Amino acid sequence: MPVAVLSALVRPLVEPQLPEGIEAKFFGSVEELLELAPQADIGWFDLDKQDVMVDAVTRAEKMTWFNSIYAGLDFLPHQLMIDRGVTVTNGVGINAITIAEYVVMGMLVHAKGYRDVVRAQERHEWLQDSPGKIELAESRALLLGYGAIGKLIKPRLEAFDVDVTVVRRSGGDGVLTPDQWRAQLGDFDWVILAVPSTPETDGMIGPNELAAMKPDAVLVNIARGSVVQQDALVAALESKSIGGAFLDVTTPEPLPADHALWSLDNAHITMHLSGRAQTKMFQRSAQRFIENCHRFLEGEELAPQFDLTLGY
Amino acid sequence: MPVAVLSALVRPLVEPQLPEGIEAKFFGSVEELLELAPQADIGWFDLDKQDVMVDAVTRAEKMTWFNSIYAGLDFLPHQLMIDRGVTVTNGVGINAITIAEYVVMGMLVHAKGYRDVVRAQERHEWLQDSPGKIELAESRALLLGYGAIGKLIKPRLEAFDVDVTVVRRSGGDGVLTPDQWRAQLGDFDWVILAVPSTPETDGMIGPNELAAMKPDAVLVNIARGSVVQQDALVAALESKSIGGAFLDVTTPEPLPADHALWSLDNAHITMHLSGRAQTKMFQRSAQRFIENCHRFLEGEELAPQFDLTLGY
Repeated sequence: MPVAVLSALVRPLVEPQLPEGIEAKFFGSVEELLELAPQADIGWFDLDKQDVMVDAVTRAEKMTWFNSIYAGLDFLPHQLMIDRGVTVTNGVGINAITIAEYVVMGMLVHAKGYRDVVRAQERHEWLQDSPGKIELAESRALLLGYGAIGKLIKPRLEAFDVDVTVVRRSGGDGVLTPDQWRAQLGDFDWVILAVPSTPETDGMIGPNELAAMKPDAVLVNIARGSVVQQDALVAALESKSIGGAFLDVTTPEPLPADHALWSLDNAHITMHLSGRAQTKMFQRSAQRFIENCHRFLEGEELAPQFDLTLGY
Repeated sequence: MPVAVLSALVRPLVEPQLPEGIEAKFFGSVEELLELAPQADIGWFDLDKQDVMVDAVTRAEKMTWFNSIYAGLDFLPHQLMIDRGVTVTNGVGINAITIAEYVVMGMLVHAKGYRDVVRAQERHEWLQDSPGKIELAESRALLLGYGAIGKLIKPRLEAFDVDVTVVRRSGGDGVLTPDQWRAQLGDFDWVILAVPSTPETDGMIGPNELAAMKPDAVLVNIARGSVVQQDALVAALESKSIGGAFLDVTTPEPLPADHALWSLDNAHITMHLSGRAQTKMFQRSAQRFIENCHRFLEGEELAPQFDLTLGY
């Protein structure tokens, strides 16, 4: 019988529904994980510490299916797992809803100058005029990345009458391809980064892209800090050559307390919290794992799969 | 030729498009307004000071059409205007877009605990977890009032997978009538007040309604402060018998600096800024006025009309 090694934290969610035909072994500590890993046919090894996850994956020589709650798994030993023929299912989309909600929130709080309203309330001061006067309606957004998150962002923004242009390899109506969007950057009020972290997206937004943006345009990054050349962004924000940046992600994380970004009044730092602003991630992940257990036993294809070659 | 008396502030927006057949006279001060008012067949008398507007309306004995950028005109001398047969066009919907956007922002910032994120950025502190963990998705909203603003709120929330129940006199599928909603209050995560200010809506939310709400439900008021019995709301927020309140409007306005609402961490005070968080109100209002000038000359019905009898 195949053995699944997984965290005791998800035991209450998984065990009652686990199909017969899979034996579950739960780890409550790093030591237990490292001890159990070699027995695993199926591994769900999520931990705060990426290096321990890598260690456990390396020890799990029998493992044919690795599952994670995380979407970004670029830290795993990809070549080793390819060589061993490991199928990887990830958490893509598990927290996509809250991240999409967070993106719209970020645009709205920038548009209405909401931080200054918060500060005025703290001073018990009744402001006479709105510190922000932007309407989302009739604005234009460039959405880079059209995966699980991007697909949820688009209809939410469209309900606000935002004209959303998607960048997608396959092109299509109202869609820009990866070689087209840079020339159009000056047309957009919002540039939203929802791309996976790959060599292609690394540093994708640099001095040239920032210079091409409208002077009041806002960069929204819920992808990875590394997608943006951060020094160039700081310079653009300091010189106010763009309107602002709503940054759920930065380089590095946590951002050091003395970093320039914290104090810029046109930078919104949200500490990679967007995906955490929900309570349903574990239920959704457990549900997905159970469904995949049934597929595993039936020999069906697991979903959603993380592509170890593409890196997302 | 009918004479229109209107503010010099809107002159650049109105004059170039004004149809022949109407003579415009512009006032640049209160004194000029009061002097010109008796000549007005058409009056657009908006001022900061309501008492002066009332004075000008009273003096405008010839006036048959009164226009305003404001939606709420309950301060006007209604009976006098009815007796004189004045048609009133108001600004309903002129700032509805930004108000609808503000409502969704209010729900999102509450849901994600965004104010604590703002404060953490000020401390240069990288939070490890989200101070708010609510998803709008799959939550339920009760929308009281389905006028220009309510009609824009509904589709925006539905794009977030919020289940929106509307209260409407005429009833219908998925709609509650005014005598039904109180019994259902406990079903909703959000109670949104977008009703006009009328004797019927005055104090509509009191101790009983607040007690019937879910303990984590949030009251959103972008209508009028008077729609809520504010002492009861303060008590509910202090005892945390509801989750929070997002209040664009209060009683009185401005809210005195020593009022209890300012300091409650589950009260969001936004100083009646929702409608001001845009730059297009004057253009929209001027455009609407011009369209009505054409209708006036053709003897067609003006729109949108404020009903002096109903008070909205």
